[in-house]
Amino acid sequence: MTTVKAYAAESATSGLRAGTIERREPGAHDVEIAIEFCGLCHSDVHTIRSEWGPAKYPLVPGHEIVGLVSRVGDSVEGFAVGERVGVGCMVDSCRECDSCLEGFEQYCEAGNIGTYNVEDRRNGGVVTQGGYSQSIVVDENYVLHIPEGMDPAATAPLLCAGVTTYSPLRYLDVQDGDKVGVIGLGGLGHMAVKIAKALGATVTVFTTSPGKTADAMGLGADNVVVSTDPEAMASAKGTLNAILDTVAAVHDLNPYLRTLARDGALIQLGLPSDEMPPVDPGLLIRKRLAYGGSVIGGIAETQEMLDFCAEHGIVSDIEMVSAADLDVAYDRMVAGDVKYRFVLDTSTL
Amino acid sequence: MTTVKAYAAESATSGLRAGTIERREPGAHDVEIAIEFCGLCHSDVHTIRSEWGPAKYPLVPGHEIVGLVSRVGDSVEGFAVGERVGVGCMVDSCRECDSCLEGFEQYCEAGNIGTYNVEDRRNGGVVTQGGYSQSIVVDENYVLHIPEGMDPAATAPLLCAGVTTYSPLRYLDVQDGDKVGVIGLGGLGHMAVKIAKALGATVTVFTTSPGKTADAMGLGADNVVVSTDPEAMASAKGTLNAILDTVAAVHDLNPYLRTLARDGALIQLGLPSDEMPPVDPGLLIRKRLAYGGSVIGGIAETQEMLDFCAEHGIVSDIEMVSAADLDVAYDRMVAGDVKYRFVLDTSTL
Repeated sequence: MTTVKAYAAESATSGLRAGTIERREPGAHDVEIAIEFCGLCHSDVHTIRSEWGPAKYPLVPGHEIVGLVSRVGDSVEGFAVGERVGVGCMVDSCRECDSCLEGFEQYCEAGNIGTYNVEDRRNGGVVTQGGYSQSIVVDENYVLHIPEGMDPAATAPLLCAGVTTYSPLRYLDVQDGDKVGVIGLGGLGHMAVKIAKALGATVTVFTTSPGKTADAMGLGADNVVVSTDPEAMASAKGTLNAILDTVAAVHDLNPYLRTLARDGALIQLGLPSDEMPPVDPGLLIRKRLAYGGSVIGGIAETQEMLDFCAEHGIVSDIEMVSAADLDVAYDRMVAGDVKYRFVLDTSTL
Repeated sequence: MTTVKAYAAESATSGLRAGTIERREPGAHDVEIAIEFCGLCHSDVHTIRSEWGPAKYPLVPGHEIVGLVSRVGDSVEGFAVGERVGVGCMVDSCRECDSCLEGFEQYCEAGNIGTYNVEDRRNGGVVTQGGYSQSIVVDENYVLHIPEGMDPAATAPLLCAGVTTYSPLRYLDVQDGDKVGVIGLGGLGHMAVKIAKALGATVTVFTTSPGKTADAMGLGADNVVVSTDPEAMASAKGTLNAILDTVAAVHDLNPYLRTLARDGALIQLGLPSDEMPPVDPGLLIRKRLAYGGSVIGGIAETQEMLDFCAEHGIVSDIEMVSAADLDVAYDRMVAGDVKYRFVLDTSTL
């Protein structure tokens, strides 16, 4: 075992405190990564505050990890020491179910092994610990190559926010000329705008904040609709082919469904903790619409997304944060006060 | 104008009474059809009872029409006198919008012209009158060919119930080896079972009535799940690729969504008059499911469905009804007491 510095939560109310954790020695198929940067995801907050059920404390969050390979196991073929790599939301899965065999490990029927807060079945049931730490050891099948030339800190959020928006856009086969809506302009939403634009779509951002109009246009949006303005919503009626809904708060989807054209789909990416208002089935029936959901992406798809982003010059807009400021950053993230993703510099651990 | 016998409702509470209506003389592109049979659809009941908004009385319902061509306009090329033909839920549409140009006239952006209870924009705004009548005059673009050898009475319900289930199964690309669920075993449901089986699917029928098990198996279902039995529902968890929901009453969709495998879709075909319980977005997100809707089918698709049914020996299971018994048949239909579709013999008008 190797002892490394990390920031962990001791309880739902403790906040994040400096400490150490143990990392396993790299096995034959493992890659050890010296972490450079780790993005801060809203899921980290929900998890360590036990808002999604009791967390397994002490817990180190973080699943938007970029670093350099420091050691490799004897059987590792795909990675070499010194290479820049990434780890996203999963570090393992059953590798046997249809979902795993088809490259959709995020939907592993046995449950994928999350990068933190999950008992690692293949490693003695040890609870996984995430990227707010100096290093991590991951099976090479769940490690991504970071293309040359990408800014490592601004690339970190692609491992979750990037692939969470890329995957449904690809699944819906969004392409040149399609019209895509994005609800919410936060960490996920700003990535959705960039990626949809790069796929050739015309992008409409829905926001409750008129003040975000200039920001949305600056990110590449073609239109901004203030969703609290009934006239603006009416003018968007029947215009869109797909909508990515990045808002995890409870909200009524029916006004957004009305902005879809025939065969359009609204894909929910954020999971509200309370019940959502019912969808009107008449809206679905009259235009053959679909209301769906999606979670992150598969490993191969995550690599595809990284290569796509490298080709199109896409990274996340980030604000760097030191370990000592993690608690403040969490509060600001909950308040929506970040453009658009915090990234932890692990040299400050 | 030609005066023909018909059964019409005078008000929401009048029931159906014998009378006459006027049909236009066939225009250059029109086909006049001597109606032999007309299926009774639950929509007919909803409409004449003004349950879907005030109907335009006096009103002749009926949109599952089969008959023989009696006259054709000078420019008609596709139909000849004496040929057996059908008319479904639409007699016209704008023919200019994307939906019409792509063969999805049912989603016409100007609104398709329903076979009854709709002002016919291309014919002076006269309210359309349906198939509980001796004849009808329809533009040839909205008339279907009934393949040789099909029983005309049992084919009539295919024009609505058949295509309403065929269209979403085709849209979802259901094929050999897929697993399809059907909620409800009425007029739509029994057609869904037959068509899904003919497409090569394994079919599971969900019903609240244990007594329908033998009937479902007789129609070709491979499995029957009594939806009020939690153990039976649990055993079906994660097994299906697609579900057609033919139930128009208010019901909770979440137990059915749990029976879908990754990337599965539940398509609602019936429109409840009251609000449905909310769908749990977590179910959609965790398995990339879709909750959608669909309404009838396009004209070309309706012809494709008729040809498919002819090839596979599929017709509706019907009970013939005389005009004098229409009110009784309506009450039995509302009570679910029909296997599985009533068809009016227009010789009894």
